[in-house]
Formats: sequence, structure tokens, C-alpha cells
Amino acid sequence: MRTLATAEIVAVGAELLTPFRIDTNSLFITRQLGQAGIDVRMKTVVGDEIAELKRTIVDALARVDVLILTGGLGPTEDDVTRDAVAQALGRALHEHSATLDRIRERFARRGMPMPENNRRQALVPEGGTILLNTNGTAPGIWLDVDDRVVVLLPGPPRELEAMMTDDVMPRLVARTGGRRLERRVIRTIGRPESQVDELAAPIYLPMLDWPVPVRTTILAASGQIELHLSAIADGSVDLARTLDDAVQSIAGALGSIVFSTDGRSLPEVVGDQLRQRDCTIAAAESCTGGLLLGRLTDVPGSSDYVRGGVVAYANQIKIDQLGVAPALLESFGAVSEPVAEAMADGVRVRLNADVGVAVTGIAGPSGGTATKPVGTVAIAVAGPVRAVRTFRFLGDRQLIRLQAVQGALDMVRRAWVTE
Amino acid sequence: MRTLATAEIVAVGAELLTPFRIDTNSLFITRQLGQAGIDVRMKTVVGDEIAELKRTIVDALARVDVLILTGGLGPTEDDVTRDAVAQALGRALHEHSATLDRIRERFARRGMPMPENNRRQALVPEGGTILLNTNGTAPGIWLDVDDRVVVLLPGPPRELEAMMTDDVMPRLVARTGGRRLERRVIRTIGRPESQVDELAAPIYLPMLDWPVPVRTTILAASGQIELHLSAIADGSVDLARTLDDAVQSIAGALGSIVFSTDGRSLPEVVGDQLRQRDCTIAAAESCTGGLLLGRLTDVPGSSDYVRGGVVAYANQIKIDQLGVAPALLESFGAVSEPVAEAMADGVRVRLNADVGVAVTGIAGPSGGTATKPVGTVAIAVAGPVRAVRTFRFLGDRQLIRLQAVQGALDMVRRAWVTE
Repeated sequence: MRTLATAEIVAVGAELLTPFRIDTNSLFITRQLGQAGIDVRMKTVVGDEIAELKRTIVDALARVDVLILTGGLGPTEDDVTRDAVAQALGRALHEHSATLDRIRERFARRGMPMPENNRRQALVPEGGTILLNTNGTAPGIWLDVDDRVVVLLPGPPRELEAMMTDDVMPRLVARTGGRRLERRVIRTIGRPESQVDELAAPIYLPMLDWPVPVRTTILAASGQIELHLSAIADGSVDLARTLDDAVQSIAGALGSIVFSTDGRSLPEVVGDQLRQRDCTIAAAESCTGGLLLGRLTDVPGSSDYVRGGVVAYANQIKIDQLGVAPALLESFGAVSEPVAEAMADGVRVRLNADVGVAVTGIAGPSGGTATKPVGTVAIAVAGPVRAVRTFRFLGDRQLIRLQAVQGALDMVRRAWVTE
Repeated sequence: MRTLATAEIVAVGAELLTPFRIDTNSLFITRQLGQAGIDVRMKTVVGDEIAELKRTIVDALARVDVLILTGGLGPTEDDVTRDAVAQALGRALHEHSATLDRIRERFARRGMPMPENNRRQALVPEGGTILLNTNGTAPGIWLDVDDRVVVLLPGPPRELEAMMTDDVMPRLVARTGGRRLERRVIRTIGRPESQVDELAAPIYLPMLDWPVPVRTTILAASGQIELHLSAIADGSVDLARTLDDAVQSIAGALGSIVFSTDGRSLPEVVGDQLRQRDCTIAAAESCTGGLLLGRLTDVPGSSDYVRGGVVAYANQIKIDQLGVAPALLESFGAVSEPVAEAMADGVRVRLNADVGVAVTGIAGPSGGTATKPVGTVAIAVAGPVRAVRTFRFLGDRQLIRLQAVQGALDMVRRAWVTE
């Protein structure tokens, strides 16, 4: 049996040929395949034309071991992937009755009859294996084609990602001859990419010459800088140990800007700190308008430590709901450290939490002044640990709000770190 | 001479086949080509393998009028685009002396001698026209291949975008016979994709046979369903009128689930409704944890109508900060319509807003019961318009929270629509 080593990814959908949408599923798929040592050689985006898709499938199968198609499995006439694959492989399409039942049930649970066109989603090319979709109606399909593999996945990322991780990867890994890739991610916050690289490069560059070389890539991602480490080897090597050593050296050089080396997000790290100390938190937000609380409560189980908060967009609400003294607002302005501290104290006391955190700033595009330009954000932490700081963030409204949320989470984290 | 109508885009570079980088140049190119009525039929990403790239070029030229290649024009051995194009077209590569001089000068200005391998950047396939690069060393190349066109552009966005706008588009537009493309987007909320399609397809399918055909694509995007319409015609046709007619017919058939036909997002639509009526809004959130307020305040200028809100994650906060009667919580549970209404009333009165909106539900993964499974969300609107409703959303925590936010925004919108 052929050892699976090369792959192509074909994304199907006219929307991916517009200026508005881009195929990002292939990034996730590439990462997953990489972990099994399967190399992506080409990526293609095709529209809803069955003839073009059919030719693309035939061409790809002449080149690589694994062909992964994403999208085009919906219920409408536009969704041509099933038909194109069946035609390209010269196989008939059959209705899969258990799948049809599942789709009907899914609609029934929402108290709706199944529209007739959803019936198409139960069609499977001869010899295909159904991949269960736990997050949607369209099942995936696995097809063995001689000693090659064709996989059809639904386009919506959450459907595709679950199916890829739970179902497709174990099947592929069984056929890669033991090669595998491992990754680690070091996440940092508080320093720009160039400074992080200046500190880390002298440590990670020599790792390219280790017996099992470790490769490092630096990525800037939504208000934080990440170092992605990877190494490839067969089963005889202790890859985990190699990467753990690498992570320890680099994280040691970077110091307290590192908030995670185990995949946890910043809100997860903060949540774990609070849980360990049996502490609760409440937040008062002005310019971030609820996004900080939204991030804190993204974490499953966060109701253990998040009490809630107040979004005080209008000044009167800072006074009425948080007990900020009108004199403070008049003397220092709404965007100031004394007001941030008063908001943090107010939300902590009124919501009966152990820790209060407050954000007040100017997200723009308007509202900036000469002394407090757009991007000025005051953040305060109140409670057993205290901190207050004024940031000047750059970027548009969205980016300023994002950085303010990250900054507030990081101030809570650091308050405990430097305790 | 062939009128140029179809295109393919090939992005060259091994980094674009990693999990870390994606080809975004094609979005810019697609938008530019679209404005000239040139339709992108396929997009491909290939690595640095000359044989694969050569075959991709030959295949593409058999299908479309315009082939645009991006990247692979650098000075290193990895940069194979020039060679692959020359081989695919059976043309020799010549050194272009004026280009070589320009590259030498560029280095001289920075006080460096030109590295010998940069000489490669002055190679041009027989018959090629140099496209000046005002932002870098690698020139672009325009090639007429019988009555088709092949264009080579450098990968860095700044270099590519200037060259595309200033040099490539005027050449292409001269050969499109005055054709151009216009787009419209119809956004809906409250019905699944298949139901939207069932309602809309009988209206949009016949539009393919209109004198100027209108093409429609349906897209599911973060809790809403969008219909993307486009039409292509030459200068003699009133394209805007054609698309306006199409939008009116489809939106008419879909009714009140349509919230926008002019590009506005749901929070923008709700914000405009509030502003028109000189109304303010406040929100009380439990399971959405601040995300509803976060979405409302995403809109620049939202401080005109958003007062703020209370995130009442813990029950005691629903009582203390929103005035929800403990008896209501005991009798009906935190996730219930009476509690949602009390929260909406409470936040409206306490924050002195005209409209109050409240969300209380079970986002999961834990916390569900037999009668109130994960995904159960009660939403209420209080004020001059009132509404309350219980939803059963499917999906994971993130998706349930997203749908709850969208549902709440939509209930505010509908309250006014059905006023």
C-alpha cells in the first residue's frame, strides 16, 4: 500500500473567486497534514462549474497521494462537489439512508420539516465512507481510489475542523509510515515582533543544527506575538523532549512577556490564575464596550470566576452604576488613570468580586485631542493586586479595541506574576 | 482580437503552502479585474517546482484569456517564475540591459554593489514588455501569447498593487470592449440557508436569462445568510438599474428577513434605526457575556445611541444590578422569558435608555438540562416596542453565543419593522 506523503487541497465555491472571500480552511488542513508529515504541493480554488472541478480532480489525482476537497456540499444547485467527484472517478451516486435520517432529525429538532433540496446532502459516490458532521447537516466523504485517497469536507470551518481532527487525521496517520511532526507555540504579549525576534533569534537559530533540527517561525496575531516551533522525525525519536528543551530555552530568554507555552489563550491563563486563588473578577468597560467581558467569558467554565460587569459607554453610567465621582471626570476627563481606578474599584465593590478591571479610552475614529489622541487607553486593576497604566495604541478602531482588551487581560496576569 | 473576459491567477511560492501564509494578492487582483468585467475562473497556489508551475501555466492558457502570475521573481534559485513561463511558452530568456542598469542603480543608491544573483531579475522571455517596478527591484513582465495575455507580477503587495493599478489595468481595459461588472449584496437573518434558497431561487434563477444576466450566489456567514448578485455588461447598459431591479425582486420575495441591501451590517442597521428615532439603547447580557454590547459598539459613532449595559453572569448580579425579583429566578429559572423581560426592563430603567435588550441562556458545554438543553436562549426587548422569544440554537459555545448576539440584534430590528 502506498505511503501517503503528498497532498493537494481544492476549495470549491464561486464566493472564493470574489474579492470578498478567501480560502482559509487550507491553512488548518495544511497544519494538520503537516503533523502527519504529509506535504501540501498545490492548492486550487475553483468555482461552481462542474466541468472545471472534474478536470481539476482528475489532474490532482495524477500528481499526489491525498486529494482534499472543501466546500460545495451544501443543499443547493450550486453545490457540485459530490457530482464532480462521482463523475471524475466514474462512480454512481447513491442516497445514504442513515445520513438522510440524520439530516431529517436535525431539522426536526428545530421543529422544521426538511426542505426537499437538503436530500442532496445524503448522496454518496459508490464505495464512499460517510464522515459524521457533528456541527452541521452535510456529511464528509472518504474515498479510496486505488491506493490514493480523496476526502470531501464541508466548507464551514467549524464543521470541517472537527471532521478533519476527529475522523480524517487518524485514518491518514495510519498510512504515513510513522513519520510525524510536532509543534509548540510560545505566546508573548507586550513587546513588538522585532524586539521579540531580537531576543529569541540567537537562541532559536542554532537549533536548526540540532540532531533533530527545530524550526522556528515568528507570527504576529491579534495583539500578541507567537513563536511556532516544529520538528519532524520518525517514531524512534523523542520529539516531545526535543521540543520541550527548545521551548524552555527560548521562553527563558524572553522572560515575563511569555504567557503561554501549552496552547492556552490569554483569557484561559488569566482564568486559571483566578481559579487557583479562588478569586472572582468583574470588569468595567468604556471604549472596549463589552469585548473584554466577552473574551473572559469565551472560556468554558468561566462562570466559576467571572461575576459580570458594567459597560459604561455614557459618562452618566460611570457615575450611576460604578460610583465614579463626577469631580474625577471633570478634573481628569473620562480617559484618565484616576477614572480607570475608580471604575475598577466601583465594579469590584458593586458586583462583589475579588478583582476589578477597568478600561477607558478613545477607540476613534473621532474623539481624539492633542493631549489624548485616538488610541489613548487607561487601564486599571483593583483588588488584592493593584495596577494602573496608560497605553497609546496604534491602528484603526477595531485594532485599538483589540489591543485594549489584550492589554487589560495582560495587566491582570502580570499583577499576579509580580505579586 | 479576442475580447478579454476570463482570467486565472497563479500565486508562486513555497511559503504560501505552509500553515502560516495565505495568498491575499489575489483578492486585490480579482477586485481590479472585476471592475473591468474580467471574471476570475480559478486560482492556484504552487511551490517552487518548475515542472509543476510550467504545467499549471500551459493548462491555464488553454482555459482563459488572461493569466496572472504573482511572486517567484526574486533573485534566488527558488524564484522560478521567469524560467517556468519561458519554458511553458517555448521562448528564450534574454537579459534586458535597461532593467539591469536600473537594478544596479537601485543598489548603488543604497551604497551597495549589486549581488551577482540579482542579475536574474533582468531576464525577460522573448517578446516580453517590461512593467516598471517603482517600489522594488523585480520588474513585472507583460507577454502577448497569440491573442491571450500572460502577466508576471512581483509578490510583495506594495509592488504588485502599484504595478497592477498603474500599468496592467489600463492595458487590459483597452481590450475588454468596455465591459464592466457590478455587485450587490442582500443580507438576511432568521432563516437557514436552505429555506432562504427555496424562497429566492425561483426569483433569481430566471435572472440568468435576462438580457443582461444576473448571477446569484448564496453564502452563510456568522449567523446570517447573504445573497451576492453580480452582472457584467458593456458601457451601453444601465447595470446599476439592472441590479437594483434584481435586488428589489429578490428582497421582495424574502420579506422581513432582509435587513440590508446596501452593504450595512446588522449593528449598523439597528444603530441607524435608533438614531432615526432619537432613541438610546442599553443591554443586559448573561450567556453572551458582553459580546452583544461589543457588536453594538463596533460601529463608529455608536456612542450617540449606546448608553452601556450590565453583564450579569452571576444570578446575584441580575438581582442587585438589574432589579430582577428573586422570586422570578426561583419560579422560572435564570434562562426564561420572564427573567429576560425583567433584565431588559431593569437595564432600560437603571441606565436611563429608551430601549432595553436582554439575553439569558445556556451557551454550554455544561449547564444544560432536559427541558432547557445547551443552546436555549431567552431574549427580550423592552421600551416603546416590546418582544420576547426563546431560541434553541445548535452548535458549540462560540456559535451559540454568536447566534444569540445576532438574534438579539435582529429582535431589536424587527421590533421597529413590525411597529
